Formats: sequence, structure tokens, C-alpha cells
Amino acid sequence: MTLDRIRHPALHGKVMTATDAARFIQDGMTVGMSGFTRAGDCKAVPAALAQRAESEPLRITLITGASLGHDTDKILADADVLARRLPFQVDRTLRRKINAGEVMFIDQHLSETAEQLRGHHLAPVDVAIIEATCITEDGGLIPTTSVGNSAQFVQQARHIIIEINESVPTSFEGMHDIYNLEERPHRQPVPLTAADQRIGQPHIQLDLDRVAAIVFTREPDSPSNVLPPDAETRAIAAHINRFLAQEVKAGRMPDTLYPLQAGIGTIANAVLHGFEESDFHGLTMYSEVLQDSAIALLDSGKLAFASAASMTLSGDVYQRVIDNMEFYKSRIALRPQEISNLPEIVRRLGIIALNTALEFDIYGNVNSTHVNGTHMMNGIGGSGDFARNAHLSIFVSKSIAKHGDISSVVPMVPHMDHNEHDVDILVTEIGLADLRGLAPRERAIRIIDNCAHPDYREELRDYFNRACQYAGGQTPHLLDEAFSWHTRYLKTQSMKPARAHRPVREAEAALMD
Amino acid sequence: MTLDRIRHPALHGKVMTATDAARFIQDGMTVGMSGFTRAGDCKAVPAALAQRAESEPLRITLITGASLGHDTDKILADADVLARRLPFQVDRTLRRKINAGEVMFIDQHLSETAEQLRGHHLAPVDVAIIEATCITEDGGLIPTTSVGNSAQFVQQARHIIIEINESVPTSFEGMHDIYNLEERPHRQPVPLTAADQRIGQPHIQLDLDRVAAIVFTREPDSPSNVLPPDAETRAIAAHINRFLAQEVKAGRMPDTLYPLQAGIGTIANAVLHGFEESDFHGLTMYSEVLQDSAIALLDSGKLAFASAASMTLSGDVYQRVIDNMEFYKSRIALRPQEISNLPEIVRRLGIIALNTALEFDIYGNVNSTHVNGTHMMNGIGGSGDFARNAHLSIFVSKSIAKHGDISSVVPMVPHMDHNEHDVDILVTEIGLADLRGLAPRERAIRIIDNCAHPDYREELRDYFNRACQYAGGQTPHLLDEAFSWHTRYLKTQSMKPARAHRPVREAEAALMD
Repeated sequence: MTLDRIRHPALHGKVMTATDAARFIQDGMTVGMSGFTRAGDCKAVPAALAQRAESEPLRITLITGASLGHDTDKILADADVLARRLPFQVDRTLRRKINAGEVMFIDQHLSETAEQLRGHHLAPVDVAIIEATCITEDGGLIPTTSVGNSAQFVQQARHIIIEINESVPTSFEGMHDIYNLEERPHRQPVPLTAADQRIGQPHIQLDLDRVAAIVFTREPDSPSNVLPPDAETRAIAAHINRFLAQEVKAGRMPDTLYPLQAGIGTIANAVLHGFEESDFHGLTMYSEVLQDSAIALLDSGKLAFASAASMTLSGDVYQRVIDNMEFYKSRIALRPQEISNLPEIVRRLGIIALNTALEFDIYGNVNSTHVNGTHMMNGIGGSGDFARNAHLSIFVSKSIAKHGDISSVVPMVPHMDHNEHDVDILVTEIGLADLRGLAPRERAIRIIDNCAHPDYREELRDYFNRACQYAGGQTPHLLDEAFSWHTRYLKTQSMKPARAHRPVREAEAALMD
Repeated sequence: MTLDRIRHPALHGKVMTATDAARFIQDGMTVGMSGFTRAGDCKAVPAALAQRAESEPLRITLITGASLGHDTDKILADADVLARRLPFQVDRTLRRKINAGEVMFIDQHLSETAEQLRGHHLAPVDVAIIEATCITEDGGLIPTTSVGNSAQFVQQARHIIIEINESVPTSFEGMHDIYNLEERPHRQPVPLTAADQRIGQPHIQLDLDRVAAIVFTREPDSPSNVLPPDAETRAIAAHINRFLAQEVKAGRMPDTLYPLQAGIGTIANAVLHGFEESDFHGLTMYSEVLQDSAIALLDSGKLAFASAASMTLSGDVYQRVIDNMEFYKSRIALRPQEISNLPEIVRRLGIIALNTALEFDIYGNVNSTHVNGTHMMNGIGGSGDFARNAHLSIFVSKSIAKHGDISSVVPMVPHMDHNEHDVDILVTEIGLADLRGLAPRERAIRIIDNCAHPDYREELRDYFNRACQYAGGQTPHLLDEAFSWHTRYLKTQSMKPARAHRPVREAEAALMD
């Protein structure tokens, strides 16, 4: 531990252990904690909190940027500390408790949490716990690998706990761009007009009187766990590359494209890797998270600038970034998630949004979150912020899952996160369906022809044809059959015609592995 | 006809009959026509077009602002002129053809049509037909009672046909505020920061070379057909008034509230009338359409300013507006619909959005458009533009329809226009459910308790309890039962336990009367 990282001397006396810091958190409180897609989460205080819960009743509302690393959600869920959790999570243990109705999970558009705190729709944050690289002479907190909702938490909390992570080099200073939305009713436009623009401060301003504790840590972020590209994700990337090249050729976009957004996960990461082999140049990203692929694109020279709310990398790639910080710092801006995901900016810049679907239906409605319509996977994340307002809203999925027992193209999605209005392009390894300007009946034909796996295509056609014949309408459906593929899966563990029966719960557990 | 209304002399030679003007429209073309919620639609050329279609093949794509008056959609649909129609309609004949799959209807967020034209997602507009009050010395077109998408149509069309309506007084000049979004990638923020601000020009600038024809008409707009408030809509208004007063008292909003948006229709109109008896003052509206209620609120002094894309009034109220034009002109701005509905502005101003649901489910997902999940009613309109980005998103509905045979609260909506993330408050005449910060299981209890009709409440509770018990999950559902109320209605014409059987098609037709 070195006090050099606390450059404002009045704060030196606030240094304490995680256990002592955790005492500021009381039963029933709302805690706002840094952390977004495993990046920049707090490493010490949450564990101290879980430990305290062994000997006293301690249930809190936990708000973060997005998901956490270090099994923090698991540890807190196991210790029964989480009464309410928002706005996103990816942890298996927590997920099980959410789906059992034991933790109340509020799934939110990631741009909206800070706004809902500011507007008092949510109970105010009592304690903020924020990871920092250092604190400046003027009382500015320099975040680490994510910004998330930290600026709003700091603005609102009665007590601020800071975890200074000594494993994160202080050269991170200058990578962040902190802009706070103004209070209504006199809010001004957000002045950002290009992905590479900086409009705020490099730090989150602290009110020193509210800084309750400073804890030193040394543990790095949990590394990213995305899988490398495979044949299917490479095929998806190739379809998208070809489509975008056509858009440029038709004069609908400049050859630098418009700024790219790519959701978290293996498929989006693979699609971005696909740009390395493209003819595009001078690309920019205006996204919520940067994965390894973004760094590879910066290295290749294809990508000129990347903006996001967090950076979640594998160990090697993270090391490359900190070893070449000046190169990356001039090409990366980390912003609050309400700015990275703000509808105002997404529409203004004309973003190309790439998000992953769990499944989609023949009319192009997307389920991003609920397995079998009931069981939460992770959360909607920022997909709605981007898809609704993008110049092009692209959703990607492999056409089948579970060795073919699940079709990602279904008659009707049993949970809808994005409806047809917000879905321009669908892509599977089979092909790409350009749905712009089409009515639902036209969308159905194109989606079945271009995206569905051959094993399921005929049955989808049959459903659509019978729905047109027997029900009709703008969006033909047979209501008593619309979910038959899902109920069949629950009974037989396959969407294909009947096989051996396995109990429902087991099938669901298998699906979420 | 008086040429005084064409103040640019170079255009005098363009005057011709509607029949001659209609000749600029060829089979297969895309036509962009003014008209938004019956207001400011074209009165002569569409009928001439329908007449021409009797003797030659003539199928077009028709894009408007929103719905048209004068049975124009009926006349064009009957004449088989409409191959494709977007982005909204309310006509029974056209609706029947849409639901039969004979007219391809592209249902759109009303803020997005102009953007999709600008971005070349849609085929370009060949001919624009725009109603005007007059044309200025500088070649500026002064719209009538709506702006809608007219500015974008004029900007893009190869041929511009203008209908000058002599029944509309030229004193309308100065009521409009035309601001065109800039092309990407260098678009600037839209500078509007208050509902009463004017940021553009009072006219739509014409490129004189593209003005193909000018036609004179004298027919006024079709009058509004909303019903007067009744006991249920007054109860809904009272619930909302009480809720908003609590928000002010709790310090979450100023006592002028934030700007109000109210969707088209009887319920929203009644809710606005309810503000006449409230203690609020200095209210503003930032909406897509102004109905009689907005004028009444301006008269009462409760409303200080009203901004919208159109003004659709009953005959008497319209007369009052034109008789007192200077009073209203200083208190009303009519804007392009992509500005009245722009997510950027909706979020910045923190709008209170009031929209009507056809039905909603126990988790607060809303169906605004599809009867029984298949048959299009009108379209999503601007509800998505506002609900997603509002400070408060309120949806209203009577708790039952068809004398109690339909419950507006159902286990699962068979079509989803707005999902739980975009629905903060639900209101029926029974009560109001404040859903902010609640997880789906908590939302279900509050919605059933506060909004469902007593005749259906127990069955909803039973569904929810069994869904929790047998399926579980973040959003418990029984997939093989989720639509049983709708299929029961199709079979028996009632969502209540079985009665006499009537055929499906007849039941649907009855539902849409």
C-alpha cells in the first residue's frame, strides 16, 4: 500500500481495512457498486460484507453498472445478502436465486439506471463502493477499467467507500471521460457529435466530506471468458461483412461505416474479429463494452477509436494494453454507461448495433433474456438502448443450440425484449435476412428462408402457412400452437418431434449450462 | 381560387386540376403525402388518383405522417391503389385489406419514418403531395393543421404537388416550427431544451424546380371523432391526477410537472380534460397531437404552451382556434413528427407520457396494436418513441371491454409493443399500479390488485400462483395456458368460462368494431 495514490492529503486518514469499511453498510440499505462486465468491480468490501452477514442480518439492494467478476454475485447470493439486484448479472448462483423468486431482480436498459436514481424512481443510494486507480490532488477519483454508473453513485451516496487497486497502473488517468447529465427541467443537449470526442472530465469529482473509507486492494479484474471464433461465428461475421460492403457500395454509408456497437459475448466478439479481414478502414466504435476484438482492431489499424463504458479483456490482451498505454489511451475513451448508451447519441451518430439474440421468431421479434419465456439468463443489458435508436439494428445467433435440439428461430418468442420495429437485420451462420421496409408476412418468408436451420425450416413454413390460412391478420399466429416448440422442449429436451421424457426443471437447468 | 396564396409569382403557372396533378404519379411509385391524425391531409389528389385507377393499373407505396381523414384510405384501398402503406392508419376498409394480407402495412415508430427515408432504408419518395395554407415570396410552403413528415417528403421527392386549402386561414403562418435533422455523420444536437422553444423556420423550404403542380381545394379537415369523457375515463383521470400530485408533494417533480404527452383517442383526451380540475398550473405539452382537451387546457390557463406534430379538433373547437388565432399561435408550435417524437428530446425534457393500451399482462407488458395477437388495429404510432424515453411512462385502459367479455388485463399479451422496461405506471378505472423499481413477480401482484376488474381478478391470481409454483423463473408463465383467455374468446366471444360458440372470424370482426 502506498499513500502516493491518494494525492489529496486530507483523505489519508480515511484508509482502513475492508472489514471496517463494510461497517458503513447497514441492513436494508441501497449500495451502488462499480463494476461493468467484470471490469472495475470492487474486490475487497463485498467479501467483507458477505462475511459480516454470517453473524448478523444483512440484506441490501445492490446496484452496479452491469455484471461483476470474482464470483462476487455468487458470494453475496450464497450469504443471502442480496434482497434486490439491478440492473444486470451473469452469475449462475444468483441466477438460480432470481429464478426461484428469492432475489428480486430488476432487469433494466443500462442507460436508464442512473436516470432512475436521479429521478427518484429508485430508492437513493446510501453507500457507494467504487474501485479507483488513484485520487487526484483536487479530490478527483480516477476509475479503473470501467466507469459504469459510478459517477451517479458518487453523486448520490451519503457514504463513499473507495477501493484503490494497486494492480492497475496510474497511467489509466486520462482514459476516462466523465460527463454528468444535468438535472431537469433545464438540461442541455449532450454535446457529443463523434465517437472520439471528449466532453467531460478525466475524473469523478468527490465531495470529500462524504468519503467514508479508502481500502487498498491488489487483485486484477477477472479475465474475460469469451470463446474464440468457430466455424459458425466466422460465417456470421462473413455475412455481416458482405452486407456492410454492399451498403457502402450502394452509397448508403461512408466506407468508414458509422460507429459500431457490439454486445458482450462470444458471437459479437467474433463478428468484430471478422472486420480485421475486411476492406473497411478508419472505423470507430461507440459501444458499451470493449472486448479483445476491439483491441485487435485497434492494433490492426482498422479501428481508429473506441468508446465504451468498460473494457473486459483476457489476461494477455490486458497486459498488452497497460504495456502500451499511451497508444491505447489516445484511442480509447471510457464513459458513464448512460452516455455510452444514450439514445440521443445512438440516434445522432447513426450507430450500427450488433447484439446477440437467445432466439427470434419468424416475424423478427427477439428474446434476449428469458429461457423458455420464464427463466432469466443475464438481462437485457444495453441491447434496447442501441437497437431502438441505431441506424442499423443487427441481431445475431447461431441457428441451432444443444446439438440441434433447439432452433433459435421459433414460431413465436415466449418473451420479447425487442419487437419487429427495432430489428432491421437478422443473421445466423445460415445467412442474413435484411428486413428493412418489409411487412411482417414478408419478414417471415425472408427469415425462414435465410436464417432458419434446414432441420427446422419446413416446420416453420408449415406453421406460417397455416397461420395465414386459419388466423390471418397483420401478424398471423396460431395461438394454441405458438409455443408448442417450447413446451415440447420442456417435455422431451428437444424441439424436434417427441423423444424421451425428462423432467421440466432438469431440462431448464441443462439449457442454462 | 385566388393566386394571392401563391406569393412567389414563378409558381403561378403550376396551378392545375387534381386530375392533371395526379398524372405525375405512376404505377409502382412511392408517394409521400401530408396528413397526421386526420389533420392537414390532402383533399383532392388522392381521390383523382383513385379515379384514375379505374382505367389503368396503378399500385403505389403510400407514406403519410399518420392517419388520414376524408375516407382517403378507404377510397384508395377500395380502388386497389395501395400496394404498401406506412406508418399508421385507422381506416376499417384498409385495415381489413391489411389483415387479409392484401396490403403490406409497415407499422413504424412515428419518429423513425423520416430517418429511414433519409438513411435509404426505404425506397425514396418519388412524389410528395402536401397540403398548404399558402406559399411565401421566398418559396416557403406554409403547412396547415399538421406538419407530420411533410418536410422530409419535400426534401426528397422528385415531384412536389401542393394542395392549397383556401378554407384554412393564412393566419396559420407562424404556428409551425420546421427543423430538419442534419445528414450523418456530422449531425449536431437538436438545440431544443424546452417545449415552448422555436428552433427552426415557419415554413418548409421548396426547391421551385421540383414543384410539379399546385391544386386549390376548399374542404376542411375531417373533424375529430373522440368520445366525451365517461365515468370510467373520468376515474382514470382522477387516479392520474392524484398520483402526479403525490409526485409533486414528494419533491420528485416541480408543480408545473414535466411536459405532457398524450396519445390520440378518447381515454387520453379524457385524462387531459381531468387536468382542468387539478391544482397544477403552468403546464406544458410536448406531444405528437393536440386534441380538443389541449385547447380547453390552454383556455383554462392551466396549460402554458403546447407543442405537437398536428392538431385534430372537433368542428367547434377548430372554429374557436381560427377566431382567436393570435392567442393560440403564441401558445402552440407544430413541428415535424421526428422532432415532436424524437427520443433525444423526450429523454432530455423528461416527458410524462400517457398512452393507451389495447390490453396489458400481469407483468406490465403492453399490446397497443394487435387484436388477439394477429389482427392490426391502427399501429404503434408514437407510443414507443415516448414510452421508452419518458420520465414517466403511463399506459391507460378500461379494465374490461365488450360489456365485460374481454379483460384488458390478461395472463400474457399475445403481441407485445411495449415491454415491462418501458411501462412505469398502469391505470384502469379500478386503480393505478406504480411499478417503478419492482421485479416482475412484484409487478404481477400490484397489477392484479390495483388494475384488474374484480370479475377477472381471482382467475389472474390463480394463473400467477400456479405459474410461480409449476414454472417459476424471473417471469413465471404456463406456456400451454398463457393465451387460453384469447383462444377462449375466439371460440365463445368471451374470456369468461365457456358460453355459446361463434366462428373465429366473426368474433374478430366484432372485436374491432
